[in-house]
Amino acid sequence: MTESNKPSLEVCLSPALLHLYDVKNSIVVIIDVLRATSTICTALYNGAARVIPVATVEECVNIGRAIDGITAGERDGKVAEGLVHGNSPFEYPREFIEGKTLVLTTTNGTKLLHMAKDAIQIVTGSFPNISAVCDYLVSQGQNVILGCAAWKDRVNLEDTLFAGAVVSRIKSHFEVNCDSALAAETMYEAAQGDVFTFMKQASHYKRLAKYGLEKDIQYCLTPDGANVLPLFKNGELVAEEVSVK
Amino acid sequence: MTESNKPSLEVCLSPALLHLYDVKNSIVVIIDVLRATSTICTALYNGAARVIPVATVEECVNIGRAIDGITAGERDGKVAEGLVHGNSPFEYPREFIEGKTLVLTTTNGTKLLHMAKDAIQIVTGSFPNISAVCDYLVSQGQNVILGCAAWKDRVNLEDTLFAGAVVSRIKSHFEVNCDSALAAETMYEAAQGDVFTFMKQASHYKRLAKYGLEKDIQYCLTPDGANVLPLFKNGELVAEEVSVK
Repeated sequence: MTESNKPSLEVCLSPALLHLYDVKNSIVVIIDVLRATSTICTALYNGAARVIPVATVEECVNIGRAIDGITAGERDGKVAEGLVHGNSPFEYPREFIEGKTLVLTTTNGTKLLHMAKDAIQIVTGSFPNISAVCDYLVSQGQNVILGCAAWKDRVNLEDTLFAGAVVSRIKSHFEVNCDSALAAETMYEAAQGDVFTFMKQASHYKRLAKYGLEKDIQYCLTPDGANVLPLFKNGELVAEEVSVK
Repeated sequence: MTESNKPSLEVCLSPALLHLYDVKNSIVVIIDVLRATSTICTALYNGAARVIPVATVEECVNIGRAIDGITAGERDGKVAEGLVHGNSPFEYPREFIEGKTLVLTTTNGTKLLHMAKDAIQIVTGSFPNISAVCDYLVSQGQNVILGCAAWKDRVNLEDTLFAGAVVSRIKSHFEVNCDSALAAETMYEAAQGDVFTFMKQASHYKRLAKYGLEKDIQYCLTPDGANVLPLFKNGELVAEEVSVK
């Protein structure tokens, strides 16, 4: 079907659909906008040495102890028992996180990250680092899968919107033959100018707003507040200089 | 999360996501716009006694022989070997199909239909019978799942657009707390006024247009050309008078 020599750009709206995609021959962008991937780039932007994403609270505690890391993660909107910090990007200013290792447990994002382990490269994406992600994807000339972490496998608005924002920015460099990409881009265009107001319709917004997290949401929907590229290497996310081909 | 006593209205964008939904306590609308569910309502509207949806060509041949039915189905855009008719709604005018049984093999739609077998009720939906479907859903006062048949489990534009059209029409009667419903409705609104032109971006459009099926597509995207409600009962789809509560 490819009519050009451009690499493909696809959107996967839920981890439960990832098996339909050719992960092995693609760069996969893990998207968990509220708030895992926004917090990851923020911590790295503010000088964290690395972020280790783990699936369970137990793993988080154990690894945190072994390497003297900052353990972080929430369950039902509160810092999980046994951990010290939460999921908010505002908990990780430079004066706190610089030079340290953040061990972060998230459910949806970490699950997807492990599912994508055979990818050419995994990076994480969110509005605070959208330009770094787009520049990287364009520079690599590889097939790309924008992988939404979703919410317990259900399609969510915020991750879809971010995928759509990326499609909108970089599609001219790719062959886009994917209805999910078209859907995501259409969503983003419908929201454009006011992603925050658009998000107020979303199921996750309602969940987080209950916990008083509007300020977090606003930050997580604003481009380039922490414009660094987290690359996944040997189980860790690190901010690295990217060689542009 | 429900703030009202209204039943819920949700959209499931792919059969691979259906396990996330409470099928057992819902009416499920099977959506396979290009072209299975459009052809089903057309055949019933034109007087077919019933439509029997089957998964395989072999089943189609066997059942067709046993009950002296019209066997129909395509693979790769051609009438499948051993079957007599194709998937086009235009193959089933009244003078041909009235009083007869259509045994139809489709892959995506039939698969979803069998997955939803525990639903309160299964009906099929498409633009040619959108009003009948909407009237029925509003009249029943039950939870609704709009189930997109998709394309080999991948989200597709045409089924999403139809789901969005239904959400747009009936949402005031339901509690809608589902980001997929919001996505579908946003897609539909973006396309409104010219669903056909919007569809030209879709992956499936490109597949079908190769086979010269623009006329089919146009019909399948036009509301109320065959405004009857196919109800699934004992393995068959029948057009029945619906009792409005």
